[in-house]
Amino acid sequence: MATSAGKESELDGAESSCTTPLATPTATPIATPMSTRSVKWEKDVEDAAGSLQRPLLYQRGTNTTSQMAIVGANTCPIESLDYEIVENEVYNQDWRSRGKLQIFQYQVLKWVLALFVGVVVGLVGFFSNIAVENIAGFKLLLTGDLMLENRYLAAFVLYIGCNAMLAAAAAALCAYIAPAAAGSGIPEVKAYLNGVDAHSILAPSTLSVKILGSILGVSAGFVLGKEGPMVHTGACVASLLGQGGSRKYGLTWNWIRYFKNDLDRRDLITCGAAAGVAAAFRAPVGGVLFALEEVTSWWRSALLWRTFSTTAVVTMVLHALITYCRGGHCGLFGKGGLIMFDLGSRQVTYTVTDHAAVVLLGVLGGLLGALFNFLVDRVLRVYSLVNETKCPTIGRSGNFKNFQCPPGHYNALASLFFNTNDDAIRNLFSAWYDYREFGVSTLLIFFTTVYTLGLLTYGVAVPSGLFIPVILSGASFGRLVGTLLGSVSGLDPGLFALLGAASFLSGTMRMTVSVCVILLELTNDLLLLPLIMLVQLIAKTVADCFNKGVYEQIVRMKGLPYLEVHAEPCTRSLVAGDVVSGPLVTFSSVERVGAVVETLRSTGHNGFPVIEDPPFAPAPEVCGLVLRSHLLVLLQGRIFTRARVKTGAAEVFRTLAPFDFAKAGSGKGLKVEDLELTEEEMDMYVDLHPITNRSPYTVVENMSLAKAATLFRGLGLRHMCVVPRTQGRPPVVGILTRHDFMPQDIRGLYPNVLPR
Amino acid sequence: MATSAGKESELDGAESSCTTPLATPTATPIATPMSTRSVKWEKDVEDAAGSLQRPLLYQRGTNTTSQMAIVGANTCPIESLDYEIVENEVYNQDWRSRGKLQIFQYQVLKWVLALFVGVVVGLVGFFSNIAVENIAGFKLLLTGDLMLENRYLAAFVLYIGCNAMLAAAAAALCAYIAPAAAGSGIPEVKAYLNGVDAHSILAPSTLSVKILGSILGVSAGFVLGKEGPMVHTGACVASLLGQGGSRKYGLTWNWIRYFKNDLDRRDLITCGAAAGVAAAFRAPVGGVLFALEEVTSWWRSALLWRTFSTTAVVTMVLHALITYCRGGHCGLFGKGGLIMFDLGSRQVTYTVTDHAAVVLLGVLGGLLGALFNFLVDRVLRVYSLVNETKCPTIGRSGNFKNFQCPPGHYNALASLFFNTNDDAIRNLFSAWYDYREFGVSTLLIFFTTVYTLGLLTYGVAVPSGLFIPVILSGASFGRLVGTLLGSVSGLDPGLFALLGAASFLSGTMRMTVSVCVILLELTNDLLLLPLIMLVQLIAKTVADCFNKGVYEQIVRMKGLPYLEVHAEPCTRSLVAGDVVSGPLVTFSSVERVGAVVETLRSTGHNGFPVIEDPPFAPAPEVCGLVLRSHLLVLLQGRIFTRARVKTGAAEVFRTLAPFDFAKAGSGKGLKVEDLELTEEEMDMYVDLHPITNRSPYTVVENMSLAKAATLFRGLGLRHMCVVPRTQGRPPVVGILTRHDFMPQDIRGLYPNVLPR
Repeated sequence: MATSAGKESELDGAESSCTTPLATPTATPIATPMSTRSVKWEKDVEDAAGSLQRPLLYQRGTNTTSQMAIVGANTCPIESLDYEIVENEVYNQDWRSRGKLQIFQYQVLKWVLALFVGVVVGLVGFFSNIAVENIAGFKLLLTGDLMLENRYLAAFVLYIGCNAMLAAAAAALCAYIAPAAAGSGIPEVKAYLNGVDAHSILAPSTLSVKILGSILGVSAGFVLGKEGPMVHTGACVASLLGQGGSRKYGLTWNWIRYFKNDLDRRDLITCGAAAGVAAAFRAPVGGVLFALEEVTSWWRSALLWRTFSTTAVVTMVLHALITYCRGGHCGLFGKGGLIMFDLGSRQVTYTVTDHAAVVLLGVLGGLLGALFNFLVDRVLRVYSLVNETKCPTIGRSGNFKNFQCPPGHYNALASLFFNTNDDAIRNLFSAWYDYREFGVSTLLIFFTTVYTLGLLTYGVAVPSGLFIPVILSGASFGRLVGTLLGSVSGLDPGLFALLGAASFLSGTMRMTVSVCVILLELTNDLLLLPLIMLVQLIAKTVADCFNKGVYEQIVRMKGLPYLEVHAEPCTRSLVAGDVVSGPLVTFSSVERVGAVVETLRSTGHNGFPVIEDPPFAPAPEVCGLVLRSHLLVLLQGRIFTRARVKTGAAEVFRTLAPFDFAKAGSGKGLKVEDLELTEEEMDMYVDLHPITNRSPYTVVENMSLAKAATLFRGLGLRHMCVVPRTQGRPPVVGILTRHDFMPQDIRGLYPNVLPR
Repeated sequence: MATSAGKESELDGAESSCTTPLATPTATPIATPMSTRSVKWEKDVEDAAGSLQRPLLYQRGTNTTSQMAIVGANTCPIESLDYEIVENEVYNQDWRSRGKLQIFQYQVLKWVLALFVGVVVGLVGFFSNIAVENIAGFKLLLTGDLMLENRYLAAFVLYIGCNAMLAAAAAALCAYIAPAAAGSGIPEVKAYLNGVDAHSILAPSTLSVKILGSILGVSAGFVLGKEGPMVHTGACVASLLGQGGSRKYGLTWNWIRYFKNDLDRRDLITCGAAAGVAAAFRAPVGGVLFALEEVTSWWRSALLWRTFSTTAVVTMVLHALITYCRGGHCGLFGKGGLIMFDLGSRQVTYTVTDHAAVVLLGVLGGLLGALFNFLVDRVLRVYSLVNETKCPTIGRSGNFKNFQCPPGHYNALASLFFNTNDDAIRNLFSAWYDYREFGVSTLLIFFTTVYTLGLLTYGVAVPSGLFIPVILSGASFGRLVGTLLGSVSGLDPGLFALLGAASFLSGTMRMTVSVCVILLELTNDLLLLPLIMLVQLIAKTVADCFNKGVYEQIVRMKGLPYLEVHAEPCTRSLVAGDVVSGPLVTFSSVERVGAVVETLRSTGHNGFPVIEDPPFAPAPEVCGLVLRSHLLVLLQGRIFTRARVKTGAAEVFRTLAPFDFAKAGSGKGLKVEDLELTEEEMDMYVDLHPITNRSPYTVVENMSLAKAATLFRGLGLRHMCVVPRTQGRPPVVGILTRHDFMPQDIRGLYPNVLPR
């Protein structure tokens, strides 16, 4: 594709060493059935050649998904998700048997679930916010009382003590109960929706620790936001609802069985992620756009409509609860806390110099954003940071602090530091004081501190979002620039703070439309749109010259096998047949039980091509693809015959229901060790026809790898069969899975093809 | 897929008559090379069986894309677009040879083009608006002067005369110069981005007639909007820029050669469509969402960012020009005209009864919207309507009219009718009069008139958008309901008008997020969000029970082969091999020139599988796919040999440049009649290897048709090769094209599979 031509030309030198498979078809080693293929997922890739800049965790030998893992605590295996519809006889039988009522039930449930996700996420967002407000408020009350009595040392000790306790509690929860809950969570959700399922990233324990840890972390006064955690929370809630609750905790609903597949679950989790953003910012449209722009790898129009409904519900729930709380029913809870900077309509007229100032802000924002990403990377790599955050932010909602100042005056620095982060942002965006309100030195100190603490905090093992630190540092930076340029530009410094925040957000996260809409929804002033857009365009363009968005960077750093939109350029010089490494394991359409069990035990593969052999076909031909999980269910059902004959689907349904084949929650399904088969049964035959997906996606072996990758990602596949282009060879010559498209794996096979 | 299970179960009865190809593989007739395959695109499908509800134009024997064609004036053939990257040696050679500079040039150009589209669309939007304001204003001035002199008859004659002249001019332009310019244009753009290229829908003549006709039509006072036409205009502008201008009119830029492919053109046209909405409503975010939700069939994250930049530029251009015009430099031009209802923040607090009222409004809006779609369908089918629109709207911007009333009073009906449509909407949305401002009878008369006229006008042969009629009738209906419920609900009637417009828009167009954002951007009040969302959710849900969105309906009525997201359910019972009808035309990899020319003359196919025969391979095997356009260029270049040998790519590049193979604008490329080959040349051989796409997407013949359709649509293909599952047959057994997935074609082959 011409779009990615930029990188391609750099490879000119290397191409001479690429194989040119079209001219000389590579002789892919062909499988003898039942032989094993090396298990690539779990294998140590330490020995792979040519990896100067391997992902951090590849160097440590395993993939991992936990934020904790980056600081060296935990590792776990990764599974791939399967968004393909497995069209086997069981599936066909199932949908044919569904009556009108069941279909109606399915449609209604789909909507009820989506709306219910909205309700739950709205409630969680509201209550975690109330909790933060109350805990932080209580802390302030005690400290303030002591200070009024002039007992400053006691106040200091109390304050530090509270923060330390809260922080320790948050860290302990993450470390001992659910390491997957640490960090932002957005990279994990992003990877999930790309098709990567890592252990326990959407588990109930992760959910509860995420919520609790986020409350504690924010209350402790860290420079971190609850936005990323809210997205993760939304995804967890959606996942739990979609898989019918959690069996482990005895919360299951069997009537959700129609949603026990990766496709419906993906849709629901997308809704959940959008709901999270909507709850964090009270920005329903922004939530939908965030899901579309940043989180998902795949989209369709119908989903837009459903996510939008979910976020609408979130907003309504929040609106109702906040209206209720305004009556003073919620303890110390102040102005709502969910940030909403209703700045009113300021008169915005721009001159040429104003535009120049905005451009400057965009460029600087892009540079500082890119630098932030670079430093996050370094900081996470060095991970020697946990105890460096003693950020002293505290305070009740929304006022300027007259910290140790005479009444009627205020301490500018205290107005920023001794507040919750939300209120600090509100103060920075405020326009109704003149621009000497915050002096240059105040803003400089605050900016430097927040920028640094934001960087350091992200590596801490608590649920921590990046939005708030980035908005805080962006806003203080913008206001700083605005104050410095006060004589040149007529725009007020509050607007500069907003534009600074926009430029930083675009500079680090590289989102544009969603950030813009979120900021608009926060400020409720659409007249600011052109300026926000301009500053974002510039910041993103500048930052894109240096590195990738912070979330992509974290996904990559964690070694999650994320499929990019644009395949690596040199994959165009390779063909599908080049990367399938043998030997391939296939099954005959009616196979000996013992052979199946042995194969399942000895390999880690999740999909096996099924070959129609004589006497069922005149010559060997492709029958389809069978999944490990389905095989296990079938074996467990013991539908065996003594002779090698077809039994057909009817026989299967005498013992098993279609629902038995539904996909279990991650890490929950049957395992090969659970099978208890007798020696006699092992010698019988099992008919695989009923569970074979007769329409697996296939590519011919000389298909270019780049095109195969487009297909694989576009359709959200887990397995893709490679068929031969010449006659007289086995009907399937290989299987492509996610890792076959990963640059590091290709580099292992063809060190000279992908330099760097 | 479980999602579409709703329709599937209805087919239970029919399924017994479906072929069950997996059990008994169908013997697809296999091609002898060079034999012809029936040309399905152009053929009369009158004889196809089982078509009770065929698209209107299928019954007339040909496809067509022009709005005019619906009223029986013109028909034209349809081409399919190809979003696949043709990875042949020419292409590979081309991108390998591109230097850093050229790649940089490409990247910069891509952005420059997108931004330039924004500038042009912004200018077009602004000037067409000024033109409307001035023409309508001048008309009003003359009429008003006569009325002040009490010469009512003369005023009436003048008024009617002006309108008739304007309307006649608009209609004449459409009828004689560019029939494709009639109507909204959104269905055509939608079809284009789905992969259907119909004659001249994006041609320069269409563009100019669209702009002029839209100005004249709106000035004539029709109940029609300029929003749809603006989208079409944006797409035309983008298309012209992308294909390097128009050769016919001597406007070509050769440096745009990198964009001469369907893929880059599609991206640019998406930007253009978004820019059109942004220009029409001054709604940049709404424009992006409109493109995403309604227009495109395919999306990726990078596009979001580019379309957003385009719409940002549009907004900035408009902002600058309107600011300039406020100084009174633009003739009669009033308040800007581009509708922007800056209603200010009204205090919105909702009670339970308010919500009930909103729900009622949503239900009614959904019902009336669905009815509107149904009636549009009927009206377009009856097409006996051209002369029925004498809608007397006229007036300068924005004031209530004291038409024949004492000073200080106003005539309510005149405030609605004797205004431009934009101002009528503004009056309806106005809150600052109490709700007796417009009486029930006034609103009822206005609503009925606008609803009827809106329906009738859409069939008229002028560029006509649907947004304004729908918003007008929705707003008057909403205000009517609000007035009637005035005693029950505390919401003001202006808000009811807004909600009514939202419910009608969702009821007819079935868009949600984009309509919501457009309304928010128009009203600049985000606090209305929850109510707008609620009413939209309900209206869309209700309307979806009855029929499809109006644009889909028009696309279908025009017989455009639009690929739906969800394949017809019964296609799951068919396999790819069932619909490929022979005989298939293939070429040998080194083919006799005469044979190629004969085939090109005798068939209308655009893609041909290439088979590697002995002596180039031990047995026949797939080499790839070759396009008609590339074949013609190669033949024109006369790279022939006397013996049947490979010549290779180097030989081709001695005569031809990669750019010679770039895709020409629609209807512009070489034709087989242009070739002038001697008898001697016809007996020579041509090596097809250099132009053969070595990686065509393939499916095995027993792939289910539903999955093949997903693949076809998801990747935006034009051709898909079907390969055999058994040995000993030709390496390609058929080709799937767009029409093979069309329900009406499948119905022709298997009348019992798709009942209805």
